[in-house]
Amino acid sequence: MNSNAMNKLEGIFTPLLVPLDERSRIDEAEFRRFISWLIERGVHGLYPNGSTGEFTRFTQEERRRITQIVAEECGGRVPILAGAAEANVKETLSACEAYAEMGVRAVAIVAPFYYKLTSESVYAYFAEIARHSPIDITLYNIPMFASPIDVSTIRRLALEFPRVIGIKDSSGDLAFMMRMISAVRPHRQDFSFLTGWEAVLVPMLMIGCDGGTHASSNVVPEVTRRMYDLFRAGDGAAAMQWQFRILELFDAMLTPWEFPDGFRAAAELRGFHFGRGRQPQTNTQRAENAALSSTLQCLLADFELVERPAGGCPVRASDDSQDIVRQVVTRVIQDLKKKGRI
Amino acid sequence: MNSNAMNKLEGIFTPLLVPLDERSRIDEAEFRRFISWLIERGVHGLYPNGSTGEFTRFTQEERRRITQIVAEECGGRVPILAGAAEANVKETLSACEAYAEMGVRAVAIVAPFYYKLTSESVYAYFAEIARHSPIDITLYNIPMFASPIDVSTIRRLALEFPRVIGIKDSSGDLAFMMRMISAVRPHRQDFSFLTGWEAVLVPMLMIGCDGGTHASSNVVPEVTRRMYDLFRAGDGAAAMQWQFRILELFDAMLTPWEFPDGFRAAAELRGFHFGRGRQPQTNTQRAENAALSSTLQCLLADFELVERPAGGCPVRASDDSQDIVRQVVTRVIQDLKKKGRI
Amino acid sequence: MNSNAMNKLEGIFTPLLVPLDERSRIDEAEFRRFISWLIERGVHGLYPNGSTGEFTRFTQEERRRITQIVAEECGGRVPILAGAAEANVKETLSACEAYAEMGVRAVAIVAPFYYKLTSESVYAYFAEIARHSPIDITLYNIPMFASPIDVSTIRRLALEFPRVIGIKDSSGDLAFMMRMISAVRPHRQDFSFLTGWEAVLVPMLMIGCDGGTHASSNVVPEVTRRMYDLFRAGDGAAAMQWQFRILELFDAMLTPWEFPDGFRAAAELRGFHFGRGRQPQTNTQRAENAALSSTLQCLLADFELVERPAGGCPVRASDDSQDIVRQVVTRVIQDLKKKGRI
Amino acid sequence: MNSNAMNKLEGIFTPLLVPLDERSRIDEAEFRRFISWLIERGVHGLYPNGSTGEFTRFTQEERRRITQIVAEECGGRVPILAGAAEANVKETLSACEAYAEMGVRAVAIVAPFYYKLTSESVYAYFAEIARHSPIDITLYNIPMFASPIDVSTIRRLALEFPRVIGIKDSSGDLAFMMRMISAVRPHRQDFSFLTGWEAVLVPMLMIGCDGGTHASSNVVPEVTRRMYDLFRAGDGAAAMQWQFRILELFDAMLTPWEFPDGFRAAAELRGFHFGRGRQPQTNTQRAENAALSSTLQCLLADFELVERPAGGCPVRASDDSQDIVRQVVTRVIQDLKKKGRI
Repeated sequence: MNSNAMNKLEGIFTPLLVPLDERSRIDEAEFRRFISWLIERGVHGLYPNGSTGEFTRFTQEERRRITQIVAEECGGRVPILAGAAEANVKETLSACEAYAEMGVRAVAIVAPFYYKLTSESVYAYFAEIARHSPIDITLYNIPMFASPIDVSTIRRLALEFPRVIGIKDSSGDLAFMMRMISAVRPHRQDFSFLTGWEAVLVPMLMIGCDGGTHASSNVVPEVTRRMYDLFRAGDGAAAMQWQFRILELFDAMLTPWEFPDGFRAAAELRGFHFGRGRQPQTNTQRAENAALSSTLQCLLADFELVERPAGGCPVRASDDSQDIVRQVVTRVIQDLKKKGRI
Repeated sequence: MNSNAMNKLEGIFTPLLVPLDERSRIDEAEFRRFISWLIERGVHGLYPNGSTGEFTRFTQEERRRITQIVAEECGGRVPILAGAAEANVKETLSACEAYAEMGVRAVAIVAPFYYKLTSESVYAYFAEIARHSPIDITLYNIPMFASPIDVSTIRRLALEFPRVIGIKDSSGDLAFMMRMISAVRPHRQDFSFLTGWEAVLVPMLMIGCDGGTHASSNVVPEVTRRMYDLFRAGDGAAAMQWQFRILELFDAMLTPWEFPDGFRAAAELRGFHFGRGRQPQTNTQRAENAALSSTLQCLLADFELVERPAGGCPVRASDDSQDIVRQVVTRVIQDLKKKGRI
Repeated sequence: MNSNAMNKLEGIFTPLLVPLDERSRIDEAEFRRFISWLIERGVHGLYPNGSTGEFTRFTQEERRRITQIVAEECGGRVPILAGAAEANVKETLSACEAYAEMGVRAVAIVAPFYYKLTSESVYAYFAEIARHSPIDITLYNIPMFASPIDVSTIRRLALEFPRVIGIKDSSGDLAFMMRMISAVRPHRQDFSFLTGWEAVLVPMLMIGCDGGTHASSNVVPEVTRRMYDLFRAGDGAAAMQWQFRILELFDAMLTPWEFPDGFRAAAELRGFHFGRGRQPQTNTQRAENAALSSTLQCLLADFELVERPAGGCPVRASDDSQDIVRQVVTRVIQDLKKKGRI
Repeated sequence: MNSNAMNKLEGIFTPLLVPLDERSRIDEAEFRRFISWLIERGVHGLYPNGSTGEFTRFTQEERRRITQIVAEECGGRVPILAGAAEANVKETLSACEAYAEMGVRAVAIVAPFYYKLTSESVYAYFAEIARHSPIDITLYNIPMFASPIDVSTIRRLALEFPRVIGIKDSSGDLAFMMRMISAVRPHRQDFSFLTGWEAVLVPMLMIGCDGGTHASSNVVPEVTRRMYDLFRAGDGAAAMQWQFRILELFDAMLTPWEFPDGFRAAAELRGFHFGRGRQPQTNTQRAENAALSSTLQCLLADFELVERPAGGCPVRASDDSQDIVRQVVTRVIQDLKKKGRI
C-alpha cells in the first residue's frame, strides 16, 4: 500500500489512454513511457480502465494487465485510482482484490450499464460491492453511458459504507454537484468529489470539488495541472483564462470524433504512438480524422506545446486575425477583471 | 452443421433465460431441462446470450459454456442463433469461430454499446466482423441499450456482405421495420427480419417480418408458437386475440421489474428454478417482487398454464368482473370482426 | 348540428393545411377550393387547427375564422373535427362553444404543451374541459410536441366523461394503441381510436383503430382513402401495398423539411397555392426546398397523380432501374402472399 | 424611454409571477403591490411574460395588459425586459412595437416552441424579427421547453444584428455559456449573458455572466440581490454560501410541484395573494400542495423572512439537528475557505 493510502483523493487524475501496437495488443513499452511522462508533467494521480481508457474494449485479463503495468511503472510516485467494473459483482470484487494487492489507492466503479437500472438497483449493486471490497471505492456517475446515480443513492452509500470514499461525476452539471456536496459533505469530510468534465473544472473547484479525472490531461497534463494550481493558489482569474482555452481544445477533441479518438490523436502529437483504436474505422473516417488531427496540432501549437504543422495553420474562419484565441481570452478576462469578478 | 444451415431464419426464437444455482453459477442440469422443455413446446429456435439471457453479466468463458450447453442439449432439433458480441472485434470473431464449430445456425451481434457511436462507426464495426466471420451474422438493433443501427447502415451491410443474413430489431417500431424491408428485401430475398418486441408480433408479421425473438417464449412458449401458427395459417383474428392477451402478460413482466427479472419470475412459475439473478436486490425489492410474482401467477392461470395461487386472485381493480381479460379480448375481437377487419 | 353528430368518428380525417396569400393572410378562396377538392376525393372528415394546420402560428381569431370557413364550405358533406386548444381552459371552452354553434362534430384538444405536465395535471386539464364542454371531445396525444397522455389517464377520462369520445394518437406506437384499446373499448364501445401516424395506418386498422388523421391526405386524398377502403373491404394485401408506397412519400415529405413544409410543397403540386409559411426561411432553405420539391414531384408522378417534372426524374440512387418503387412493393407483396400473410 | 435604455442588461431581473383573482383574471391591484415590493427589495429589473409568468396561459391581450401594468407601476425605477413572443413573426413585431412605446428596455423572445425547429430555422425566425424590431431583443434559450438555440446561431445573430443585445439561457449548462461568451463577447462588448437557472447563478457570474432572470427572486428578492452584490463586491465565499442555500429552496419549489406552482406558493408566504393558477388541479394535488407549502414556509423561516408555521417545523429527516441547513453550509464554506478556494 503506498503512502497516499489514507489521504483524500484530490487533484487531477489522468484517465489513461492505452497505446496499442500494430497487432492491437497493449504496447507495454510505450505505455510505460507515457505513464512516466505524465507523472513528470505533474498529474496528481493515474486512472487506468476509465471510459477514456476504453475499458469495455479490453478483456478482463487485459484490464488487469493494464493496472499492473500502471502500478509497476508508477512505483508509488502518485496514487492510482483503478477502474474495476467487471461483468458482475463477483468478478468486480475479484478485480478489487487484485488491485488492492497491486497497491492502488482506490477503485472506481461505474454504475451498471447496458440495462438501465432504477435507483434502488443501483444502490443494491454498489452496496453489495462496498460490503465486501478490500479496497476503497469511488462511485462513477456517467449518465450518458450508464445508469444514473442520483443524489439520494449517493447519500445512502456514503452514509452506510466507509469504503465508499468518493464520486467521480461526468455529467458536468454544477447544480447536481452542489446537491451531492450538500447531501454528503457534512457527514463525510473525507469524501471526495471529482468532476469528469474538464470543460468546467475551475467552476467545479469553485463550488467545492476536490479535483477531476480529465481526458485532456493525457494531452496537456501541464495545462490541467496549472489550472488546478492557479486556482488553489487563489488566482481564479488566471485559472479561468486557462479554462476558456482548455474548453476550445476539449471541444475540438470531443467532436466530430468518436470518443476517445480525438484525445488519442492529440496525444499522438505529443510524441507517443497510440496505434489504431479497437473500434474499426472506414477509410472515409481515417481521411477525416487525419484532417482533424491537423486542426488539433494548430490548437496545441497555440499552447506552445507542439510545432505548427508544416502546412501552417489556417486563419480562423470568419475572423481576420490569426490570434483570435488569445484575443478572445484576453477580452473575456479583461471584462471579468473590470467587473471585479475574478 | 445442422440441417437448417441453409434455411432463412423464421419463426419464434427463444432468447434463453439462464438458471443459476445457489452460488450464482450456471445450473447446467436445470438449463438442459429447460431447453428441452422449450423445444418440446414448439419454439422454432434457441437464442443464447441475448439481452434476456443477461449476456453482459456473464464472463467470456461463461458465454461460451452457455452456447455449448445449448448446442449439446438441442442436438440439432432446432436452429440456434447465438449472441457472440465480445469486448472487441477480435474477441467477437473468436466467439464466432467457436460457435461455428458448435454447429449453431448463425450468430447475433448487438451494435456497440456503452459508447454511443455514429452510423459510420456502426457500419465499420459490423463490416469488419462480416469480412472475417466463418458464420452467418444477424445484426441486433436495440436502440434503448446500444448504438442505433439505421436503415441506410442496414442496407449497406446487407448489400455488401452475404454473411449478414438478417436483423433482429427490438425497437418495436413498425414504420422502421417497413423501411428496412423496403430497403433490403428487393435485393436480398434470403434476408431475415425478426422483431424482438413481442408486444407487436402479429402486426410485425402482417407487414412482412419473418418471426421474432421473444423473452415471453421462455414463459409461454405454447402461446407465442400458437400466435405464429395461427397467423401463418391465415387466421389473423385469432392471432390478434392472443396478441392482446400476450401484451397484458408482457407488460406485467416488463414493469415494474428490472429486466429480465419479471420473465425469470414468470418462468419459475412454469416449474423451473432460475435462482437469484446476478444483479443484487435490496430486501425491499425482494419483498415487492414476491408480491408481483403472485400477480404473474394469476395472469398465467388465465392462460390455464398454471394453477391460481393458494390465496386466490384479486378481482381486478376498478372492474366488477373476475373475467375481465376474456371480456376485453372478446369485445375487441368481436368489434374487429364486425368491421370485417380480421 | 349535422347528421353525423351521433356517429362514431371513423375513417380518414384530413388535418387541413391552410393556404396563405402574399401578405400571409388566410387565402379564403383557395382554402374553400381546397376543402371541396378534398371532399370530392373522398376524405371522410375535415380537421382544421391541427399540427399540420400550424394552429400555433395563427391567432385565436384566425383559428375561429379557419373553422368557420371549413364549416361553411363543407356544408355538412362530411363531419368536422376542429382543433380547439387555446391558451387556457376558459378560452378553450369559449372556442368549444363557438365550434358547437358552427355545427362541427367534435373538437380535438391537444395535451398542454410548452410546460411538460404530469399525468395528474393532464387529467385535471381535460377533466375541467370535459366537465363544461357543450361539444364532444377528442383527446390529442402527440408526445413529441406536447405533454404525453398515458393509458391510465385516457382510461380515467373515458370512463368518467361521456363527452370524451375518442383519442387521436400521433405516437405511431402500436403497442401503446393496443393498451389504450384494451383499457377503454370494453367500457366504451362508442370511443374512437384514431392514429395520426399514417406510416402505419394499415397495421393500426388491423389492431382495431377506427381511422386516422393524416397530413398526407392533403396531398394524396385518393390514396389514403383507397388504403382505408381496401382494408375495410377485406383486401389487406392491397392495402399493405399502398401502405408501403405511402410510407416512402410520407418520409420524403417529413424530412429534411420542417414540418409541415414538405406537405405544403407536395400539396402545391396538386394545383393549389399555399404561399409562404409563417415560419421564415433563409435563402439557403428556399433553394433546398425547391430542389426537394422536384423529388416530391417524381414521387407523386409514380402515383400517376401529377406529371413528371420537365427535367425528368433521376434514376434512383444505387439502383439500375427507374421503376424501383414498384419493384420493391411487388416483391414485398409477393413475398407476403407466398407466405399466406395477407 | 427610461434612462437605462443605453445600458447593458445586468443584474437580477425578476420573471414576474402574475396574481389572479377569484375569477382567474389578472388581479391588477395585487400585481402593482407586488411589483413595487420587488423593486423596493432591490431587484435590478422586471421581466413580465416569461415562463415563470406563464405567458402561454394568457391571451395576446392579457400579455399586453400585463406589460402595461408593469411599465406603469415601475415608472422607470428599473429597466423592463418584456417577453414578446406571439403566434408568429408579424404578431411578435406588433408586440415589440407596443412594448417599445410603453418604454420597456428590451424584449425577450423565446425560440419557437411546439414544433422542434432546426438551427437554420431558428436563425431565420430571429433574423426576421431582428430586421424589423423597433426595440432591442434578448434571445431566450430554454431547450427543455422550446427549440434549442445553438452557439453558432447565437453568434450569427449577434454579429449580424445590433438589435440583438443579449441572451437569456435557462439550460444551466456552464460549458454552453462559456462557449457562447467565447463566440460572441470579443465581437460584441455590449452583449448581455443572462442565466435563467438560479441554481448556478454564482458560478455563472464567475465565468462572466452579466446576471440572471430568476424565478426565485419573486420569493426571496433580498437573497438573489444579496448573492449578486456579494459577488460583485468580491466576496465570492459569502456569495457561494447563499448559493448553496438558495439551491435548497429552489429545489423545493421546483419539484414535486408543476412549474411555477411552487414559486407561486412560496411567494404567497411573503404576503401576496396569487390565486389559483390557470392550469387546473385535482383535489389530490391541492391537498399535496398545501402540505408542500408548509415545507416551503419552514425553508423561508430559515432565511428569517417569514415565521415558522404554527405547527412548527419537523426535524429534518435522518438528521438529529434542527439546524442542519446552517451546518451544511457552514461546513462546506469552511472547507472551501480552508482550501483557499473562495
